Amino acid sequence: MRRSYNNYSLIRRSTVESLSQFLASAVDAAHKAGEVDLVTETDKACEELIFNHLKQLYPTHKFIGEETTAAFGTTELTDDPTWIVDPLDGTTNFVHGFPFVCVSIGLTIGKVPTVGVVYNPIINELFTAVHGKGAFLNGNPIKVSSQTELMSSLLATEVGTKRDKETVDATTNRINSLLYKVRSLRMSGSCALNLCGIACGRLDVFFEIGFGGPWYELLLQSFWALSLCARPTQPLRKDVAGGAVIVREAGGVVFDPSGTDFDITAQRIAASNPSLKDALVDVLRQTE
Amino acid sequence: MRRSYNNYSLIRRSTVESLSQFLASAVDAAHKAGEVDLVTETDKACEELIFNHLKQLYPTHKFIGEETTAAFGTTELTDDPTWIVDPLDGTTNFVHGFPFVCVSIGLTIGKVPTVGVVYNPIINELFTAVHGKGAFLNGNPIKVSSQTELMSSLLATEVGTKRDKETVDATTNRINSLLYKVRSLRMSGSCALNLCGIACGRLDVFFEIGFGGPWYELLLQSFWALSLCARPTQPLRKDVAGGAVIVREAGGVVFDPSGTDFDITAQRIAASNPSLKDALVDVLRQTE
Repeated sequence: MRRSYNNYSLIRRSTVESLSQFLASAVDAAHKAGEVDLVTETDKACEELIFNHLKQLYPTHKFIGEETTAAFGTTELTDDPTWIVDPLDGTTNFVHGFPFVCVSIGLTIGKVPTVGVVYNPIINELFTAVHGKGAFLNGNPIKVSSQTELMSSLLATEVGTKRDKETVDATTNRINSLLYKVRSLRMSGSCALNLCGIACGRLDVFFEIGFGGPWYELLLQSFWALSLCARPTQPLRKDVAGGAVIVREAGGVVFDPSGTDFDITAQRIAASNPSLKDALVDVLRQTE
Repeated sequence: MRRSYNNYSLIRRSTVESLSQFLASAVDAAHKAGEVDLVTETDKACEELIFNHLKQLYPTHKFIGEETTAAFGTTELTDDPTWIVDPLDGTTNFVHGFPFVCVSIGLTIGKVPTVGVVYNPIINELFTAVHGKGAFLNGNPIKVSSQTELMSSLLATEVGTKRDKETVDATTNRINSLLYKVRSLRMSGSCALNLCGIACGRLDVFFEIGFGGPWYELLLQSFWALSLCARPTQPLRKDVAGGAVIVREAGGVVFDPSGTDFDITAQRIAASNPSLKDALVDVLRQTE
């Protein structure tokens, strides 16, 4: 928590004007990316376009994207203003033409997601937020649902891409347990759009748990400390930085599915309105 | 099969002109319903509006909807031209504001779905089809995907509303088995829009299995024959009549998840392009 407070002071040092400007730049970049012809190499083309647009405006900022080998790309998150870009969230949807596809752009300052833009060019929905300034859908204020009962909640989750038996069994066991506790279940195939769904109240609870989790990371760290394996890498999720700001600014909470603080470097995320967090964490704990 | 041939001859007796007129009338009714204020009683208001519109034009036709007690509503499907209307498919989505909501209108002649209209007023997508005349999205021809490998397919299914242990376990066991056999899984919450997703190639395979199935129905019929229970009712699904025509006219197949002919009075449905049908049926059979 102390780190968070220190980091929020870094955000305060950015004037309101510059944050608004950052937002406007990100929206421009997202729109430009949305116009890229839907052809091969879309992912890379969109990322280059977004990075070029923002790098020209903010040459001192850092950039993290899918193409970490890109000329000015970086891989490790620092306290510096850092743009985290997922140029095409919902890749499988994109390939199939399923309309849950988006560009996700987030700016972290002191590692805290501070500016968020998520743009779905197919159904023309632009979600935006700046730390302390509220969240918007196509310019109109949005807020999380007022649902207080998990039993009446619409839950979103995803089955991910891993197909080892342990992961698949864990995923379907969780779904099995949750079906008794929620109203219904949706899978859209886009994490960033699931977060925006929470932000505008279309969805009440969302979680995604990749393979691993705190115990697994602790194990890897221990192995590394004992020189039994290479230093564990923490591949940063590019699809949550934008959405996290949007959820929080819409009055929601973003957290680790275990109930601890959300860690942008972990392969796990959950989001809801504040009333439903504890109930979701409880149910997920029972399925572990 | 013989019954089907006889019934198709009933369709042929309807002139092409009258089928086109039926389609235009259904589109008008769907648009009118899409404009109904999104307030309470939407379901009922939409149905009344659609029924009134069509009944005025086709006073001799029959009508099946959610409100079976309505003045001119009927409950049993006959060979007469019958409009089957789901005024609001995706009710949970509607309540939560999740944008997969639609009006579904189907016309059966000789029990064969012949005219289909599915309209999503939120993202303004109108799917239409007339038997023998192709399928369209907002006026543009659509066809099913050309995917031939189940392993590369995007699968849609739903968790339904039943929460008894038998149903929930069967649902999650099926998902568990299928995750090894398909690319990914989507749940949109609207059966009619899942069918339209198959028709326009956004989805490759779709199935939905309610409680029961052929063995269960056989059991009930046997109990009834032995006077051990009341005559089993077959609540007709109102959300598939429109979509079934649209899938078939887009070059797809609609079938029972067991691989037998689709029965509009059963609580089970599957749809895909012709190449993927056998593979889907095989996998589903393995999970029984």
